[in-house]
Amino acid sequence: MSRSGSGLERTVHVELGERSYPIVIGFDTVAKLGAEVARRTGASRAMVVTVPAVAKRHGPAVMRSLREAGIRARRFEVPDGDRTKSLRQAAKLYEAFLDAGADRATAVIALGGGVVGDLAGFVAATLLRGLPFVQVPTTVLAMVDASVGGKTGVNLPRGKNLVGAFHQPKLVWIDASLLRTLPPRQRAAGSAEVVKHAAIRDAALFARLEGELERFLDLDPEVLVPVLERNCEIKAEVVAEDEREAGTRMLLNFGHTLGHAVEALKRYRGVLHGEAVAMGMVFAARRSEELGLAPEGTAPRLAELLVRAGLPTELPAFPRRAYLGALRVDKKRREGEIRFIALREIGRAEVVPLTPERILPPRAR
Amino acid sequence: MSRSGSGLERTVHVELGERSYPIVIGFDTVAKLGAEVARRTGASRAMVVTVPAVAKRHGPAVMRSLREAGIRARRFEVPDGDRTKSLRQAAKLYEAFLDAGADRATAVIALGGGVVGDLAGFVAATLLRGLPFVQVPTTVLAMVDASVGGKTGVNLPRGKNLVGAFHQPKLVWIDASLLRTLPPRQRAAGSAEVVKHAAIRDAALFARLEGELERFLDLDPEVLVPVLERNCEIKAEVVAEDEREAGTRMLLNFGHTLGHAVEALKRYRGVLHGEAVAMGMVFAARRSEELGLAPEGTAPRLAELLVRAGLPTELPAFPRRAYLGALRVDKKRREGEIRFIALREIGRAEVVPLTPERILPPRAR
Repeated sequence: MSRSGSGLERTVHVELGERSYPIVIGFDTVAKLGAEVARRTGASRAMVVTVPAVAKRHGPAVMRSLREAGIRARRFEVPDGDRTKSLRQAAKLYEAFLDAGADRATAVIALGGGVVGDLAGFVAATLLRGLPFVQVPTTVLAMVDASVGGKTGVNLPRGKNLVGAFHQPKLVWIDASLLRTLPPRQRAAGSAEVVKHAAIRDAALFARLEGELERFLDLDPEVLVPVLERNCEIKAEVVAEDEREAGTRMLLNFGHTLGHAVEALKRYRGVLHGEAVAMGMVFAARRSEELGLAPEGTAPRLAELLVRAGLPTELPAFPRRAYLGALRVDKKRREGEIRFIALREIGRAEVVPLTPERILPPRAR
Repeated sequence: MSRSGSGLERTVHVELGERSYPIVIGFDTVAKLGAEVARRTGASRAMVVTVPAVAKRHGPAVMRSLREAGIRARRFEVPDGDRTKSLRQAAKLYEAFLDAGADRATAVIALGGGVVGDLAGFVAATLLRGLPFVQVPTTVLAMVDASVGGKTGVNLPRGKNLVGAFHQPKLVWIDASLLRTLPPRQRAAGSAEVVKHAAIRDAALFARLEGELERFLDLDPEVLVPVLERNCEIKAEVVAEDEREAGTRMLLNFGHTLGHAVEALKRYRGVLHGEAVAMGMVFAARRSEELGLAPEGTAPRLAELLVRAGLPTELPAFPRRAYLGALRVDKKRREGEIRFIALREIGRAEVVPLTPERILPPRAR
């Protein structure tokens, strides 16, 4: 079952002192997950959090792998969708895990996309003041973004990720073959974060994507595994430089200021996170050009790659005051200014503190 | 107004690398709080969480001190009592803080006892993934215990502190004069933790308390400030050795295994935490003697000091099966065993993993 002998298995080490952990990237490797969970967490029990669609496709193989490693595993399904990231859902999991006998030798495993990872991670961060946590991402987005960095959290009615904690996983297990069952729209949305990493930090990766984007989206392991690896490296480098998000880690928010606003205004419905980020990145790149921060042509080059991935690049037509209102609850706000991430050129980004009004001047959008 | 010139002001440094912080201990020092909060947190806003009785007595002086330091401070009152430590109350504070304009340059200040500190600390740990936190304890218990160590949390219906996070404060400000308005029963309860620190770690402090307990309870600054200082040192030493509670920090749970069970069985009503801990310590010391771990006479000597403080030393008469049930949800449980803290002699304790049934043998209690 495992093709890891093909030489395609890679490990990225996230260096955070005693909170260091490995990201293991491969193709068709789920059978080996259980042994690695046992080795990395020492857990004798596991609470696996997932959504119904993922449970159906990948649940049995994951549970079998855990049980074969001697781990008593229980599965918990939560509804799909960003609204699942709520305090109410977290409270349900606290009770369900304790009912199932959770103690400090219990690992929490997120099997799913970013929603499952953020919610399960928050529960792992806070139940009994912290349980060992393992990410098994099943979306491109979660593989390259949500599963690296230790951010966990839930939404409040007024905004996304307003409650959360930093809680590093003990292991991130990326089996890229799980993407075969991911709908094409989800794959495309995930590629937005791949493009983002390239845009803010790696011009060579950006050029590679311009050459091989379709092979990546078609899940060709020869492109997929090394591109996922490079993405995890970028995220891991940035996180290691800045675990608590005081400096360079903010660059990862490129496209997210407006992206989060779009998601909030759409009440997290009808738009995927990656789609919102794609719109936000093109907006930010255009604004960077207008402010004289990026050379002309930067935004169109970025937009072209995103369009090839099937992603939207124009903000939805909400009134400017609605966008301003959404920006004002941005949690990176300090003293009325938002840490806006500007693109300086393809491969390099910069933090520019701007008021919501300067981010969105009256004529813009 | 300040008597800090009396030479009674002390600072204990809690060494935790980049999370290090000072505990400033004095008498009549509240006027200087604001400047220190500004210096330590850089905050321009503060959300002060307190209970009505404390708000009435100390609120105006605290708010004035903050405002004179240029901090826009808002006060939030929560009901007194352990049931306030709930997810529901945390959710209310998230909304209230955001309504009041909380951002990452906002400090959360706990003005009160352990309940306020744990709840406000949990909100500070999780709102916007972490806001700077300051403790201004107003009870003996909070001064020597709850405000040092970074533990924050709320209760679930089935047990105490089952949800929480480690979040170190930027500053702990102990103005011992605030204890003047604390009811005598509360003062006595707090002294249980003072006795605990002495019992597990400092025989000389234990002897000092045997000589000066009444002066301590009468709030004689000449005894109060140095004893509080030594207690904070003990707690800080233990926390610095073991921030995440894997080893020696567990010794601080002396008396807490049964103490928490008593609180849970009484539904947190009619018994103060320190009272429950006093009962739990005497139980643990007697059990230590029975198990041949402590010399004969250890438990009576401990009980005598607690009785002088006006504290109860006998467990309430719940059925054994009720105690066993309460012990089984102890969050320090691993694989069915509880890390029971045994006393080896006055001044020295030890972790002994025991099943609930061995902690509470059929004939015991």
